[in-house]
Amino acid sequence: MMPAPRRISGVEASTMSDSKTSPRLLTTTTVRGVESPSPFPSSTRVYVEKDGLRVPFRSIALQGEPPICVYDTIGPVGHSLQDGLPRLRAPWIDERIAAKHPRPTQLFYAREGTITPEMKFVALRENVTEEHVRSEIALGRAIIPANIRHPELEPMIIGRNFLVKINANIGNSAVSSSIDEEVEKLQWAVRWGADTIMDLSTGKDIKATREWILRNSPVPVGTVPIYECLERVKGKVEHLSIDLFLETLEEQAEQGVDYFTIHAGVLLRYVPLTAKRVTGIVSRGGAIMAKWCLAHHKENFLYEHFDRICKLLAKYDVSFSLGDGLRPGCIADANDAAQFGELETLGELTTVAWAHDCQVMVEGPGHVPMNKIKENMDKQLAICHEAPFYTLGPLVTDIAPGYDHITSAIGAAMIGWFGTAMLCYVTPKEHLGLPNRDDVKAGVIAYKIAAHAADLAKGHPGAQERDNALSRARFTFRWKDQFALALDPETATAYHDETLPADAAKDAHFCSMCGPHFCSMKTSQDVRDFAASTSEATSAEIEIGLRQKAEEFRERGGEIYSAE
Amino acid sequence: MMPAPRRISGVEASTMSDSKTSPRLLTTTTVRGVESPSPFPSSTRVYVEKDGLRVPFRSIALQGEPPICVYDTIGPVGHSLQDGLPRLRAPWIDERIAAKHPRPTQLFYAREGTITPEMKFVALRENVTEEHVRSEIALGRAIIPANIRHPELEPMIIGRNFLVKINANIGNSAVSSSIDEEVEKLQWAVRWGADTIMDLSTGKDIKATREWILRNSPVPVGTVPIYECLERVKGKVEHLSIDLFLETLEEQAEQGVDYFTIHAGVLLRYVPLTAKRVTGIVSRGGAIMAKWCLAHHKENFLYEHFDRICKLLAKYDVSFSLGDGLRPGCIADANDAAQFGELETLGELTTVAWAHDCQVMVEGPGHVPMNKIKENMDKQLAICHEAPFYTLGPLVTDIAPGYDHITSAIGAAMIGWFGTAMLCYVTPKEHLGLPNRDDVKAGVIAYKIAAHAADLAKGHPGAQERDNALSRARFTFRWKDQFALALDPETATAYHDETLPADAAKDAHFCSMCGPHFCSMKTSQDVRDFAASTSEATSAEIEIGLRQKAEEFRERGGEIYSAE
Repeated sequence: MMPAPRRISGVEASTMSDSKTSPRLLTTTTVRGVESPSPFPSSTRVYVEKDGLRVPFRSIALQGEPPICVYDTIGPVGHSLQDGLPRLRAPWIDERIAAKHPRPTQLFYAREGTITPEMKFVALRENVTEEHVRSEIALGRAIIPANIRHPELEPMIIGRNFLVKINANIGNSAVSSSIDEEVEKLQWAVRWGADTIMDLSTGKDIKATREWILRNSPVPVGTVPIYECLERVKGKVEHLSIDLFLETLEEQAEQGVDYFTIHAGVLLRYVPLTAKRVTGIVSRGGAIMAKWCLAHHKENFLYEHFDRICKLLAKYDVSFSLGDGLRPGCIADANDAAQFGELETLGELTTVAWAHDCQVMVEGPGHVPMNKIKENMDKQLAICHEAPFYTLGPLVTDIAPGYDHITSAIGAAMIGWFGTAMLCYVTPKEHLGLPNRDDVKAGVIAYKIAAHAADLAKGHPGAQERDNALSRARFTFRWKDQFALALDPETATAYHDETLPADAAKDAHFCSMCGPHFCSMKTSQDVRDFAASTSEATSAEIEIGLRQKAEEFRERGGEIYSAE
Repeated sequence: MMPAPRRISGVEASTMSDSKTSPRLLTTTTVRGVESPSPFPSSTRVYVEKDGLRVPFRSIALQGEPPICVYDTIGPVGHSLQDGLPRLRAPWIDERIAAKHPRPTQLFYAREGTITPEMKFVALRENVTEEHVRSEIALGRAIIPANIRHPELEPMIIGRNFLVKINANIGNSAVSSSIDEEVEKLQWAVRWGADTIMDLSTGKDIKATREWILRNSPVPVGTVPIYECLERVKGKVEHLSIDLFLETLEEQAEQGVDYFTIHAGVLLRYVPLTAKRVTGIVSRGGAIMAKWCLAHHKENFLYEHFDRICKLLAKYDVSFSLGDGLRPGCIADANDAAQFGELETLGELTTVAWAHDCQVMVEGPGHVPMNKIKENMDKQLAICHEAPFYTLGPLVTDIAPGYDHITSAIGAAMIGWFGTAMLCYVTPKEHLGLPNRDDVKAGVIAYKIAAHAADLAKGHPGAQERDNALSRARFTFRWKDQFALALDPETATAYHDETLPADAAKDAHFCSMCGPHFCSMKTSQDVRDFAASTSEATSAEIEIGLRQKAEEFRERGGEIYSAE
C-alpha cells in the first residue's frame, strides 16, 4: 500500500526512507537560545542555530525522560499586531535583490544549484540535508512558498518527501466577521499547528484584512485573487478581464501573498461535462470562470494569458496553487470526466509555469469515496509531473454535515499517505456556516492527526518519536507527560479531570476507565518484570525461567493490585 | 484497492457486488404500519411487513423528493424501563424449543438448510435474499448474535457481505457511574445508530446493571465475563478457575447476553513476547489471563477448557467474540509477534467453536499505523477462515488523546473497507476517562461515518442513496432536507443557525460561507440550465449551442447574482 518509489524520466525518485535523514529527536546540545515559554504546558520555544540561521522548535520537557523537540508553527511571540512580526528574511532578500538575479524564485536558484537561506532553514526544520531540499525543489517536487514581499515568513516546504503539511482557511464573507476576528483566527490556527493559511475573504475590507494578516503571519499566506476581482466588478462576472486580474494580482503580490489559487484549468469545453453532475461546480472560483466562459463563449482568460500571469508571479516568487475549479462536490461526482479533464490542463500549465521558474502546486478534491482516492493521487503525479498535490480533504461521505472535519480527515490521512504534500483543512462548519474560533481549532487538530498519521504510514524518519514518547508516558502513568505530548494538552487534561480531578490522580498508577483492580498497564508492567529476563532465552530456558518465576511470584504474595 | 473476491478452499467467496441484492431505497408501497414519530426530525419509524415479520426502518420525509428509508437501530419506543421492551422473538424461540433441536444456534440451522425468522428478519433489514443470509452464516462468514434468552432483540447480522456495523461500549467502573446512567447510555447509543452494545461494567451491581440493560436493549449485548469473575475473587487473579468462569458464563447466558468476549488465545508462550513492547498488554482481559498463566505457570484455562465453554455457549446460542488480549496498545507495538501469534490461536479456536455449531467473530486491534492495517485484515481472513472481524478502531496515531474518536475513525473506515464486519467505537475520552453522554454520541457518530464510508467504498448496493439525496438537497438549497438526512440533524441545524439564524434563511438560495454574490451552487445551476441541452450533442453541436446560449445569456441580462 505504501506508494512505491516512482520512476520519472529514468530517474529514481527519492522516498522518505532513502533520503539522507536522521531521527528528528534533537539532542539538547544542538539547541541554542531558549526563548520565552510557548503557550503549551511544559514547553519552550527553542532555536537550532546554524550559519546565522535560527530555526524554531518547541521543546517539551518531560518528567521521566529527556525533552522532545517538535516542529513549531507558532512564530515569534510577544509582538504587537501594529508592529507586525520581525522581518526575518529581509537581509536574505535584500542581498538577492542587490545581485540582480533574473528571476528571484526558489525554483530558479535550485535549478542553478544555489542553496538559499530559505532552503537551509527548511533543511534544519525538517532535519534533512540542504541538498535534498534543493534537489526536490529543482525537480518541481517541492515548493517553498515565500513571496519576497513577505519577509516575516519562517520558511517551510511543501512536497511529498517532507512532513505532510496542513492549511487552514480563514477570511470573512459578506455576511460575517471582522478584521480583528480574522487576525485572531490566523494566530489561533498557527498556534494549533497550521503550516499555511489562506485568506478567503470576500466581504468588505479585503485588502486591509490581508495586510493585517500578512504582517502578522509567520506562515505562508495564500489567496484566491478572483474573489477580489469579482468584488471590484461588483459581482458582475462578465466584466472580469485579464487586465483587471493582473492588476489585482500585482497588488496582492506587492502586499506579500505567498501563493495564489488560480483557476486556469476551467476550460470552456469542460463546462458542459458538469451539467449532469449531482452538485455541478462547487468551487467558487471554478463557478466564476465557468460562468465567464459561457457568458462570452470564449476560452478562460486565465488560461489564454497564463504566460503573463507566470511573469508576474516569477517577479515576486509567488507560488502557483493551480485551482481545481471542477472538483467534485459530492460522492456521486467523484473522479468524473470534468474533474480529470481539468487535471490534464493543470498538468500542461505546470510545465508552462516551470518554464518561467515559477513554483507550482496543484489543488485536488473534494468529495471522494475511499475506493477512488488513490486514483486521484496516481493521476496527479503522472499528469502533473510530480508537482506537489494540495487537496481539500477529501470527504469520504456526504451524510455528516456538522462532522465534515471527521469525514474529510479520513480521506486526508489516506491521500496524505499516498503522497499528497499538503492537506487543506475542513472544519465542522463546512457546508453550514463560517468557522469560528472553536471550529478552526477542531479543523486544525483533525488535520494534524491526518497529516501525522500519513507521516507515520510513509515512514517519515523520526515521526514516530512523539507517539513512542507519549506511549511510554502512558505505560508508566506519567499523566502530565502524556498531556504535554498531546496535540491538545488542554482538552486531554480537562477530559482526564472530569472523572479524576484530584491532583494526586495525576500521579495515580491507574485511571478512571478501569479503576485500580482492572489496570492492564499495571499487569503489563508485572508481566514485563516477570518475563524480561527470559525474553532473550531459548524456549527451554524460558520454560525453566517461568517456572521459577511463578514460584517467586506466589512467594511474594502474588498480588500487585493493592488499592493504593 | 477494493479487496478482490477471495478464494477459500476452492470456493469463490461472494462479494457485495455479486450478491443478489437490490438498492436499499424502499418504495412507500412496501412499507406498512407507520408508528409514532422517531426522535429525528421529519422522520417516522415504519415497518416492512412480510410473513408475519415487522422489520423497522426510519422513513425520512423530504420536501423536494420522495421519502427515503434508512436502517433503524432505535428499537420500539414508549415502553417503561420497568416493563422492558416487547418480546419480539419469544414465539420464534418457543417454537424451536418445542421442536427440541440438538443445538439452537443460527449456525446449526443455517448448516442444515433452515431459514430462521431471525434470518428472514435480517434479510429484509439488509434488503438481501434470505438464502444469502443463510449461506453466509453457514459458511461462518456472518453471525446473528441472538441469545435465546434475549427475546427483546431485533435481529441484526455481522458479516463483511452486509452493511458494516458498529458497537458502543458502555458500563460503569469502580470509580464512576450508576445503573440509570448506563441504561440511558444504551438508549442514547442506539438512538445515534449503535448496532450492538457491550456492557463492560467492572464496578458494583454488575449483574443488576446487566439485567436492566438486557431487558431494554433492542440490539445485541456483549460482555467480557472475566471481569465479573475477577470481582467474585475480589481481584485476586490467581484464584480464577474454569469452574468459576463457567458458572459466571451460565448466569450471564441465562440473563440473555448475546456475545461473550473470551480471551482464550492468550497462551503462556505468547506472554514473554510482550515483554519488550512499549505498552505491554493493554487489553484488560488479556492482562488478567497473562497474569494467571504466569502465576500458575499453566496454560490459559480458557484455552484448555474451550470445549466446555463451547458447549455452554451453544446451549443458548451465545456468539463467541474471540478476544484479542495481546492487541497492540501503541503504534510501536502494531503487527508484532505476540499479536499475530495470538491470531493463529484464534483461528484454531474458531474451528473448534464451529464444530460445536457456535457462531464466532474475532476481535482485532487496537493501535495500527495506516500502512499496517491491510495486513491485519488479510491475515485475519486467512487464519480465521473468514470468520467476521470485529476491530477496535484501529487508532492510526498515539499523539491525540482527547481526539481518539478521530484517530481511530480513520483506521476504522479503512479496515471496514478492507473487510471488517463490525467496528468497536472509541470515544473522545479513550485513555483519559469514562465516556459520558456527549462522548458516547461523539463516538457513535464518528463510527457511523467510518462504517458508512466503508459501505460506500465496498460498493454496498444502495448505500450511496442517502449521500445522493443529501447532495441533491444541498445543490437545490433545501436546507431542511439536508438537516433531516444528516447523521446528526440537531448539530447540523445548530451550526447553520449560528451564522444565519432566521427561519427565512432556511429557504435562502445561498449560505453564510459565500453570501449571495459568491454562491457556486447558484452558478452551477445556471451552468446546468445553460449546458444541459448540449451535453448529449457532438462537439460541433456544442460549439454552436454554446455560441447561441452565450447570446441568450447576455440578452437576458447576464446576471444571476441578484441579492434577493
